[in-house]
Amino acid sequence: MAGNTFGNLFKVTTFGESHGVAIGGVIDGCPAGVTLNLDAIQQELDRRKPGQSAIVTQRKEPDTVEFYSGIFEGITTGTPIGFAIKNANQKSKDYSHIKDSYRPSHADYTYDQKYGIRDYRGGGRSSARETASRVVAGAIAKQVLSDIKFQAYVSGVGPIKLGKSHTELDLSLTESNIVRCPDPEMASEMEQYIKQIRKEGDTVGGIVSCAISGVPVGLGEPAFDKLHAELGKAMLSINAVKGFEYGSGFAGSELKGSEHNDLFNTDGTTKTNLSGGIQGGISNGMDIYFNVAFKPVATIMQDQETIDKDGNIVTMQGKGRHDPCVVPRAVPIVEAMAALVLVDYWLMNRTIKK
Amino acid sequence: MAGNTFGNLFKVTTFGESHGVAIGGVIDGCPAGVTLNLDAIQQELDRRKPGQSAIVTQRKEPDTVEFYSGIFEGITTGTPIGFAIKNANQKSKDYSHIKDSYRPSHADYTYDQKYGIRDYRGGGRSSARETASRVVAGAIAKQVLSDIKFQAYVSGVGPIKLGKSHTELDLSLTESNIVRCPDPEMASEMEQYIKQIRKEGDTVGGIVSCAISGVPVGLGEPAFDKLHAELGKAMLSINAVKGFEYGSGFAGSELKGSEHNDLFNTDGTTKTNLSGGIQGGISNGMDIYFNVAFKPVATIMQDQETIDKDGNIVTMQGKGRHDPCVVPRAVPIVEAMAALVLVDYWLMNRTIKK
Amino acid sequence: MAGNTFGNLFKVTTFGESHGVAIGGVIDGCPAGVTLNLDAIQQELDRRKPGQSAIVTQRKEPDTVEFYSGIFEGITTGTPIGFAIKNANQKSKDYSHIKDSYRPSHADYTYDQKYGIRDYRGGGRSSARETASRVVAGAIAKQVLSDIKFQAYVSGVGPIKLGKSHTELDLSLTESNIVRCPDPEMASEMEQYIKQIRKEGDTVGGIVSCAISGVPVGLGEPAFDKLHAELGKAMLSINAVKGFEYGSGFAGSELKGSEHNDLFNTDGTTKTNLSGGIQGGISNGMDIYFNVAFKPVATIMQDQETIDKDGNIVTMQGKGRHDPCVVPRAVPIVEAMAALVLVDYWLMNRTIKK
Amino acid sequence: MAGNTFGNLFKVTTFGESHGVAIGGVIDGCPAGVTLNLDAIQQELDRRKPGQSAIVTQRKEPDTVEFYSGIFEGITTGTPIGFAIKNANQKSKDYSHIKDSYRPSHADYTYDQKYGIRDYRGGGRSSARETASRVVAGAIAKQVLSDIKFQAYVSGVGPIKLGKSHTELDLSLTESNIVRCPDPEMASEMEQYIKQIRKEGDTVGGIVSCAISGVPVGLGEPAFDKLHAELGKAMLSINAVKGFEYGSGFAGSELKGSEHNDLFNTDGTTKTNLSGGIQGGISNGMDIYFNVAFKPVATIMQDQETIDKDGNIVTMQGKGRHDPCVVPRAVPIVEAMAALVLVDYWLMNRTIKK
Repeated sequence: MAGNTFGNLFKVTTFGESHGVAIGGVIDGCPAGVTLNLDAIQQELDRRKPGQSAIVTQRKEPDTVEFYSGIFEGITTGTPIGFAIKNANQKSKDYSHIKDSYRPSHADYTYDQKYGIRDYRGGGRSSARETASRVVAGAIAKQVLSDIKFQAYVSGVGPIKLGKSHTELDLSLTESNIVRCPDPEMASEMEQYIKQIRKEGDTVGGIVSCAISGVPVGLGEPAFDKLHAELGKAMLSINAVKGFEYGSGFAGSELKGSEHNDLFNTDGTTKTNLSGGIQGGISNGMDIYFNVAFKPVATIMQDQETIDKDGNIVTMQGKGRHDPCVVPRAVPIVEAMAALVLVDYWLMNRTIKK
Repeated sequence: MAGNTFGNLFKVTTFGESHGVAIGGVIDGCPAGVTLNLDAIQQELDRRKPGQSAIVTQRKEPDTVEFYSGIFEGITTGTPIGFAIKNANQKSKDYSHIKDSYRPSHADYTYDQKYGIRDYRGGGRSSARETASRVVAGAIAKQVLSDIKFQAYVSGVGPIKLGKSHTELDLSLTESNIVRCPDPEMASEMEQYIKQIRKEGDTVGGIVSCAISGVPVGLGEPAFDKLHAELGKAMLSINAVKGFEYGSGFAGSELKGSEHNDLFNTDGTTKTNLSGGIQGGISNGMDIYFNVAFKPVATIMQDQETIDKDGNIVTMQGKGRHDPCVVPRAVPIVEAMAALVLVDYWLMNRTIKK
Repeated sequence: MAGNTFGNLFKVTTFGESHGVAIGGVIDGCPAGVTLNLDAIQQELDRRKPGQSAIVTQRKEPDTVEFYSGIFEGITTGTPIGFAIKNANQKSKDYSHIKDSYRPSHADYTYDQKYGIRDYRGGGRSSARETASRVVAGAIAKQVLSDIKFQAYVSGVGPIKLGKSHTELDLSLTESNIVRCPDPEMASEMEQYIKQIRKEGDTVGGIVSCAISGVPVGLGEPAFDKLHAELGKAMLSINAVKGFEYGSGFAGSELKGSEHNDLFNTDGTTKTNLSGGIQGGISNGMDIYFNVAFKPVATIMQDQETIDKDGNIVTMQGKGRHDPCVVPRAVPIVEAMAALVLVDYWLMNRTIKK
Repeated sequence: MAGNTFGNLFKVTTFGESHGVAIGGVIDGCPAGVTLNLDAIQQELDRRKPGQSAIVTQRKEPDTVEFYSGIFEGITTGTPIGFAIKNANQKSKDYSHIKDSYRPSHADYTYDQKYGIRDYRGGGRSSARETASRVVAGAIAKQVLSDIKFQAYVSGVGPIKLGKSHTELDLSLTESNIVRCPDPEMASEMEQYIKQIRKEGDTVGGIVSCAISGVPVGLGEPAFDKLHAELGKAMLSINAVKGFEYGSGFAGSELKGSEHNDLFNTDGTTKTNLSGGIQGGISNGMDIYFNVAFKPVATIMQDQETIDKDGNIVTMQGKGRHDPCVVPRAVPIVEAMAALVLVDYWLMNRTIKK
């Protein structure tokens, strides 16, 4: 526990605060003999990094990953992969406006209460910066699972919803726009909305959807570690996430069994896929798909009343460079976490039959 | 892994198939010195058991728990608590109609593919019967956490939705009706709907909501093991669950930051609670609340076309005694899993400060 | 933690006190499709059980294992195997002589201090009775690892030492005598010694050695989970064990590198085997062998001065039926723990190569 | 598993090969609010580093630790502590003499068989260099456990044995000589022996003993995770260790119960301490003490016949700079691992009482 490790067999442990020396992690359990494309790993980081487009935070962090171990002549050796991303951001500046105050709907108050101490320069460990380490690990997991395709995309920005399932979309268009929405028209509408929100000094939430294809039958575990339960945990562990649903999701709760059941084809595939590729917690070979709800970023460019450590009311000024909407940058994080879940079950599945 | 253990410090391992000799489990890590009310544990089982009302399955299983260890003179000793619930159901009967066929949207196909063998008499390990063991463990967790109140209730049956938050309801009314909905009028409507659905030989999904009050500040872990991430996993690990949202949930993704932020009172409480009692993955002392979406039960009393092991199309007859709607019996399960999550973080929190 | 689970992939959790209703356990992660010989499991229990010969405790416990789940038509299903052994011993009798007193070199004092409560009827959880559950799990592990041979035997009783390595012995003779020493002459000498010690109302320690053959190359993990480290932990977790050495062991610390190195044959086997079948924490295919030192049983049939809960000096009378020497009954326990270690690494090894 | 993490609550994960970019690790679960003496951490590393004296390897590695996270203004924050030690050694040189050959009694053969690939420049992950990361973590654990004193020392070099228990020694003299033996005369004799062995181009094994005082009563867990079992695993996980014994150890197996039992004083302490400070797997407040046997280093400065990857016989020349005897440098490693074991149980013990 203590919560900085994810996975059982492909085990990722991350470390690092937003304003410390470096963030990074260790991957333990990556199979030996995987020829890694290191550029592809960096590209995933670039999809997540700040400053990449006009609708994300304009902070500059190069986010270059350095590998310390576990890779020899470009191939994984089966030993732990240590890596770090140096923080460009650690220069001292003036934090007096946040040092003793609790930003509303941030983790400042809860961290102080829990630990009695916190790195007040930014979000510390609660900063979404930690997810860069996950993207590195997830990018490696993707390369291990070369037959499985992870495709996340933005399906909602505030009240603007895509309203189509992944089977009705051309997911190859996701990267064609800065919102990462595979429907170019909707993407354009979302982009305008985000820009307007930013102009107001405000932020807005959104939805990231994800489809996973090429999943072999049999991944998942009974009882507590159902495949979708672990996917749900993985997604809910991403900063700002408030909800997760897979397959028919919340809408499925309104249906009747006769409407919801996925009838079989003779080859074991199903005619419909309201199950979302998982039955009894175990993959059935159909596409896995799910939605992840992100709340609006708590840091807004408007003055807010709040309290300091001593319970005094203070006014917190909105300043700094923050994301008006987190979902475009969340897309690679969702994919990374999905890959981390799948690789673990994929390895686990090798142990189950005599 | 292998997925039959939940928790890190208050660790519950369950075993048992629906038609085996017994189900049961082991609780490892329960603190010593807790005077247990054994009747209260059995009462929780009774809230879950079949045959308890006119709108649940009419199967008869007494579900009496026997404790084997870890309790001495009514007090926990800190050693593992082993327990079992004998299956009344294990008498041989005719399973020929399901032995070689895969029931649609059940786990038959995926289990067979994964394990190459399965106990075909009912759902085996994938049966919701496994959750009886969770209810036992959760009931003990509740007694350990005597200052925390777990209150789950039905807030939706099919298309019928309660449409009120937990703060607008009198949750003491939950057990006043067989639907377990704290709004008596809505409960009555839901009950009629379930009865009609059953008459059609069909089933229907629903929503269970849960409010947790009295939670101390500081429970939760950074990064992967955020409190709501583990709650989400716990809920998604319950049979038939398709979605989880906490606090503002999916609706929160449509809001602006200026609308969503919970401003502080001078005592550290917040004026609103869209955060759902958790900030940065750590409890802030406000009520934790969440919704859990259940799909309709897959076993319906109508004939369905399906396939057998060899890929032949067969007609599966609807028969047996099954729940038309799972949510009334799911209420104690949701509470049990919530208690298991909280007790683990509560114990963990004792280790964090020097 | 809390220490009642062993293994990562073939995970055994045990429960139960010596004088409770039952002891037992859950095995999670046993591969599916293993046809189990249930008689062979009971036979292993019989090798451990009290009353089996003239030199062990004369208590009567049938130690019959009942399986509750995870086995269907004699074959493992991949789901958790729950089992219990009812205690014959739980009838109330007079415990007043030990209730409030701390037996010297027992766990009474430490348990009371740690937990603040303990089942004073016998050793409770600290009783070696707990190892019966391990023997059940180990017997299943042996059947999973059908190509690996686990052969433990008594190599020392008090000052009487066998003084031969496993390669100089005919291990098929181990069960030919009640000491379980494969050298019949030494066995006879040991037997006489144990009988004499018992006559004195005393107890004596001993050594159990173990050889494991047929181990595939490659089992073990780098760094902390070296194969011999886990074997050592497994053995040291058995009641009364004070030491563990493998391969050249303590004697090896006196040698020079030029004497200790195992030179290779051209097929990768080695000419000598001071390494004990493990190099760098990983099996090299040669026999694994090790020694386990057991202290004398603390319960003696002589009066001892001790203290009660309040620190008063009291005289504790020696009575009851206890083992004069624990090693003959420890032989199947050592084999069981070795099998539990090996099966875990054997499963783990399936995950390491792409 | 995969074996690169140690501990459950104070969890240390290490990474790094001897000739990679860096070694290092992550500590997860260190309590918040511990003021760290960073110099003391570096001093522990200096006790382990190469080149420190005339009787260890003359390789030069500064072994300077850099902390990346988890410490703010000199105080632990409760978040993961990431750290790295850059390798000075990674410059390319000629490895042709070992690239394709298997050094006798090294891990070359087993790693190649297990992983199918290995970093052939030195020992890779199996190099004792990995233990530098453990020393960093252990030094922090020691500071958390400021009331507990860990004192390891050399008690044997080859056939030269100290022959005294820790209570007969002045352990403050351990650092007074380069052997780290608290008996100056014996230290001198050991030093001469090591120098002679090195002159012969050979190596020799030895014994490290350790005493731990100030341990609170109650640390340890029942059954599998007995305190001494975990200590044994910790020690056996150190490179070159072949055996572990605590308290009366192997010699205790020759004693009678009437000789071995530790009788109580009225305050709960014991008159003797053959138990080694642990009863029933749980600390009783008396000194914990144990011995650890190290085999001779496998790399010798003599030619040896061995095989290459293809099974051809080749002659391996003895060259390079290696330790003639590993025990002087092993002393801080033994202390570090002991501290890592104790801190975990110390944290765990906070959770056990209601």
